[in-house]
Amino acid sequence: MGTSGAIHVRLSSVTGMRVLAFTDGTLADPDAAHIRVNDLGLLRGDGIFETILVVDGRPRELWPHLDRLARSASMLELPEPDGPTWERLSHKVIETWVERGGPAEFGLKLVYTRGLEGDPAAAPTGFALGFEIDEKVIRARTEGVAAITLDRGVDTGLAERAPWLLLGAKSLSYAVNMAAGREAARRGASDVIFLAGDGSVLEGPTSTVVIARGRTLYTPPATIGILPGTTQAGLFRGAERAGWSTKIEPLRVEDLRTADGVFLASSARKVTRVHTLDGEALKDSTTVHAEIAQAYESVYS
Amino acid sequence: MGTSGAIHVRLSSVTGMRVLAFTDGTLADPDAAHIRVNDLGLLRGDGIFETILVVDGRPRELWPHLDRLARSASMLELPEPDGPTWERLSHKVIETWVERGGPAEFGLKLVYTRGLEGDPAAAPTGFALGFEIDEKVIRARTEGVAAITLDRGVDTGLAERAPWLLLGAKSLSYAVNMAAGREAARRGASDVIFLAGDGSVLEGPTSTVVIARGRTLYTPPATIGILPGTTQAGLFRGAERAGWSTKIEPLRVEDLRTADGVFLASSARKVTRVHTLDGEALKDSTTVHAEIAQAYESVYS
Repeated sequence: MGTSGAIHVRLSSVTGMRVLAFTDGTLADPDAAHIRVNDLGLLRGDGIFETILVVDGRPRELWPHLDRLARSASMLELPEPDGPTWERLSHKVIETWVERGGPAEFGLKLVYTRGLEGDPAAAPTGFALGFEIDEKVIRARTEGVAAITLDRGVDTGLAERAPWLLLGAKSLSYAVNMAAGREAARRGASDVIFLAGDGSVLEGPTSTVVIARGRTLYTPPATIGILPGTTQAGLFRGAERAGWSTKIEPLRVEDLRTADGVFLASSARKVTRVHTLDGEALKDSTTVHAEIAQAYESVYS
Repeated sequence: MGTSGAIHVRLSSVTGMRVLAFTDGTLADPDAAHIRVNDLGLLRGDGIFETILVVDGRPRELWPHLDRLARSASMLELPEPDGPTWERLSHKVIETWVERGGPAEFGLKLVYTRGLEGDPAAAPTGFALGFEIDEKVIRARTEGVAAITLDRGVDTGLAERAPWLLLGAKSLSYAVNMAAGREAARRGASDVIFLAGDGSVLEGPTSTVVIARGRTLYTPPATIGILPGTTQAGLFRGAERAGWSTKIEPLRVEDLRTADGVFLASSARKVTRVHTLDGEALKDSTTVHAEIAQAYESVYS
C-alpha cells in the first residue's frame, strides 16, 4: 500500500517573486504545498480574501482592507479575524519582500478560509501572499482598457432581502468573476462592468466603477450588493482635497455612455480608464484620468 | 531568513477514514498538505467537483457523474477531463478503501481545478477523495428533514441568457450554498430548496428536488439553470421500472405544498423525504418514500 505525500507535486514554473507567511507568523516556501485537500476554502470556496497594494514598503489602505476582511467574515459567519494579527502578518511579508529586494510595487493577498471539512475543532486557515503585479494590469493604468457590460442576474434590492447570497462579500467563490473575464476576452475586451437586471451599474468582477461628470466623481452605493471599494475610497479622499466633489449614488448604464470618464478602481489597477465600452469608444478621458490618478497618488505621498 | 514548509500545519483531528489519490495515479496521505496557496481552486473557487456514492465497492452512476464533470468543465472552459483517467482514479480509491476495510458505503469526491495562478503552463489539479458519509445525512434518509425555501435571486431564463453566471455548473464556488445551509439551521431546519424570483422551484444547495403526485414523479428541467441530478436520474429509472410515470417540467412553490411527497435526491442523501417546509408539516409521505426509495435501490441491486 504505497502512499506518498509529494511526488505528484510538479515543479513550479510560476514567474516572479512571491513571499508567503501564515497567520502564526511563520514564513513558508510559496512553491511548496501547504493546504490540505479538505480545506473548505478549496472544496467549497468557503473563505474570504483581500488584495492590498504595497508601494515602497508601504501598504495602501491597510486598515480599510482589514475592516472589509472583518465585514466579509461576518457575512460568511467566519470567526472574526484578529486585526492586529493580520496587520503583523502583512508587515512580515512586506519586510521580507523589501529585504529580498523585490519590485517596489507588489500585491499582498490575505486569504482566510473556514479550515478543514469534517474537523469538529476546525480552525480557520489564514495566510498572506506577496506577489508581483501582472504587467498587463500595470500597462492598463496608462493605456486604459476596453470593457463590456454583463448582466449579473440580480436586482439591487436583493442583497438586503437575501443575505445568504453573500452579495458584497469578498469570498473565495469567484468562479463567476473569472468567467466574466473570459467572456470579455471572447468579445475582444479585457474587463467587465456588471449590471443589475434593471440596468443599474454594479461593479467590475474585481474592481469598483467610478465615473466623472464635470468636477464630480460618482460611484454606486455598497447597499445595492457590491463591495465597498478601498481604492475608490482613497481616490475620493484625494479628489476632494484637489477640489472635486464626490457622490455615492445609483448609476445607470446610460450614465457610463455619457460620462466625462469611466474608471475601474482596485488595488492592482489603481485608477484605470475605460476607453471603450461594449465596442464603442467613450468620450476621451485622458486629461480627467491624469488629474484624478494624480489626486489618488497624492493621498499616499 | 527562516522559511519553513510545514510547521504551521497543525495535527489533524478529522474523523473517519479517508483515501486520497491524485490524477497521476498516486495514493497520498489525506492528512498531509498537497495543494499550493496559489491554486486557483483555492484562490478563486475556480474548479469543479462531483460527489459519487459507493456501496459495497460499486460506484453509483459513475459515468453520469463523469459526464457531468465534463459538462461543468465545458461551462468553466477548463480542459476536458479525460474520462478513463478519472474512472481509473475512482476505482483506485474504491479498491484501496475496500482493501483497508472501510465502511461499506462511502462518498467519493472528484475535484478538478484550473491549477496554479500565474503559471503560464498551468495544468489542472485533480484528485479523488474517499470519505465517510456524515451520520446525520444517513439518519435523515429514514427520518426525513425539515427544509426552508430561499430566494436564489435569479430568474429561470437567466442561465440561457447569461452563461458567464455558470448556473448549473458544479463549481467549487459554493460559498452561497454553504450560507444557505446556515440560514436553514438558524430557522430550525436542516436543508434548503432554492426558488427563483417568480416562485419557480430550482434545486437544493447540494441536491435535486423531486415531488410525487399520484403515481408520477416530477423534477424541474436543468435548462432553468440547475444541475442535472444523477441520483434523480437513477431514481426515475427505478421508479419507471416499478410502474411510476416520471415528468421533467417546471414546478412552483405551491406544488411543493400540495404534493403527495417532496424529496431531496443526492449521492449522499439518496432519496430523502422533506417532512416540514418553512415550518409547516407537509402531507405524510412515509409510504410513498418507502416505495420510491426501494425503487431507487433496485437499480443497483
